Amino acid sequence: MSAEGARVDGVATDMVSVRERGLHYGDGLFETIACPQGVPRFLELHLARLREGCERLRIETPAAAALAREVHALLTPEVRAVVKLLVTRGVAQQRGYATTGRERPSRIALRYPWPAPPSAAAREGVRVRLATVRLGENPLLAGLKHLNRLEQVLARAEWQDPDIAEALLFSSSGQLISGTMSNVFLVRDGRLVTPRTDLCGVAGIMRGVVLKEAPACGIVATQELLRLEDLQGAQEVFLTNALTGIRPVRELAGVTLTPGPVTQRLQAQLAPLLHD
Amino acid sequence: MSAEGARVDGVATDMVSVRERGLHYGDGLFETIACPQGVPRFLELHLARLREGCERLRIETPAAAALAREVHALLTPEVRAVVKLLVTRGVAQQRGYATTGRERPSRIALRYPWPAPPSAAAREGVRVRLATVRLGENPLLAGLKHLNRLEQVLARAEWQDPDIAEALLFSSSGQLISGTMSNVFLVRDGRLVTPRTDLCGVAGIMRGVVLKEAPACGIVATQELLRLEDLQGAQEVFLTNALTGIRPVRELAGVTLTPGPVTQRLQAQLAPLLHD
Repeated sequence: MSAEGARVDGVATDMVSVRERGLHYGDGLFETIACPQGVPRFLELHLARLREGCERLRIETPAAAALAREVHALLTPEVRAVVKLLVTRGVAQQRGYATTGRERPSRIALRYPWPAPPSAAAREGVRVRLATVRLGENPLLAGLKHLNRLEQVLARAEWQDPDIAEALLFSSSGQLISGTMSNVFLVRDGRLVTPRTDLCGVAGIMRGVVLKEAPACGIVATQELLRLEDLQGAQEVFLTNALTGIRPVRELAGVTLTPGPVTQRLQAQLAPLLHD
Repeated sequence: MSAEGARVDGVATDMVSVRERGLHYGDGLFETIACPQGVPRFLELHLARLREGCERLRIETPAAAALAREVHALLTPEVRAVVKLLVTRGVAQQRGYATTGRERPSRIALRYPWPAPPSAAAREGVRVRLATVRLGENPLLAGLKHLNRLEQVLARAEWQDPDIAEALLFSSSGQLISGTMSNVFLVRDGRLVTPRTDLCGVAGIMRGVVLKEAPACGIVATQELLRLEDLQGAQEVFLTNALTGIRPVRELAGVTLTPGPVTQRLQAQLAPLLHD
């Protein structure tokens, strides 16, 4: 399960500079890219999100072609894999938070094995808990898949049971935000709602695909401020993630849910896009 | 101004694993240690804070002796330097936030040159601005000097003027917290107050020294919830930092302040402890 291969700035290597601002400050962004047949899925969407993230953090955006090359260089045709791609502000030129303007962004790519095949539970729905950890709210960082992930590390450390797939997190003011590594959707009166990502949370790639594809199968989908009551009142709940697509929630904090028709229509709609 | 020397897990090297959880998640802590005569100042306090941070993040705490060795190995007697010491949860054993229990904490130490001698402005007081960036509130991370520092990077990027020494930050709910790289103290009716660090911010080493030493020179010091009005109503304002000790604020967001008697008494009280 460790990294099978890695590249930094176009060179195959397992090492980065001890002065990486990514290490010292989490000063960067990442993407986790499913490559189901040795081909990166939704690569354009991942690179577009990276570019937007770099612009918001004022990190010089590496050329999309250079980033795509790092990903492709780690892949073997027909062999499925996961590639994690990091872009940081680069190696520090001095001590401290300030930049000199001479930093050059780092491109770091790692290949990992494709996850174990989903269990029946994952196909039929997953069990989900509610996290105790709450997320700090910061509109400046909200939506970004940045490298400051201690909150997610702490939330993931709250359970060991391998049969629990995910924990849902709320923000400091009690807004429902997301899972530790997934976005969450609720079905309410036949309509689809997902938390806004302007206070905190990550604007996931699969979340974006679901929001885009929902109208094509006649489902109204909106982004809203949601709280625990909305979650408890939902007829269907599902999770999205770039690797696992749509996973219905069959148990939420001990309460049984039934994967329903809206979830199933969206799974059918997305299936041709995922071809894994 | 770049790292002059570095060590990782007891070995002199400039590189760390590309799978460092410190890089991927900011899953670790750091200390910036002044070594004014080639001797680490307040080393016991730094190591105690690291230990407390490791305990709160459930990172296995490296032996204090091993950490002290990393610091000392980078120093030359009588040559002043700054050593930054990082402890992370270690090299990831798998992809994702979850740990396997097989991770071993990383000890990373870097030596930097002693900062340029303070200008007259720094001795007589520094100019300070108010940051636009607000800090997310998370009691689980509050007080820790952890590696999730994007908020500080963004706050430090808000100004370029080298004559501005620091920016003061407020939290999402409007609490005064700290500078980007310093703690802040206000004098109000002869008493000393500093923001609590239980919502966000770092419990700085020099902040702790000031709180401990204040009673010895007859000054009552408390930690409180403070807001912009408290800052604006203060008779004296000063900043603390492990490298620079106490620095009076002589201009706050364009308003002139006069370094006053409480600040000066504390500077005199601390001087023998700083011997730089």
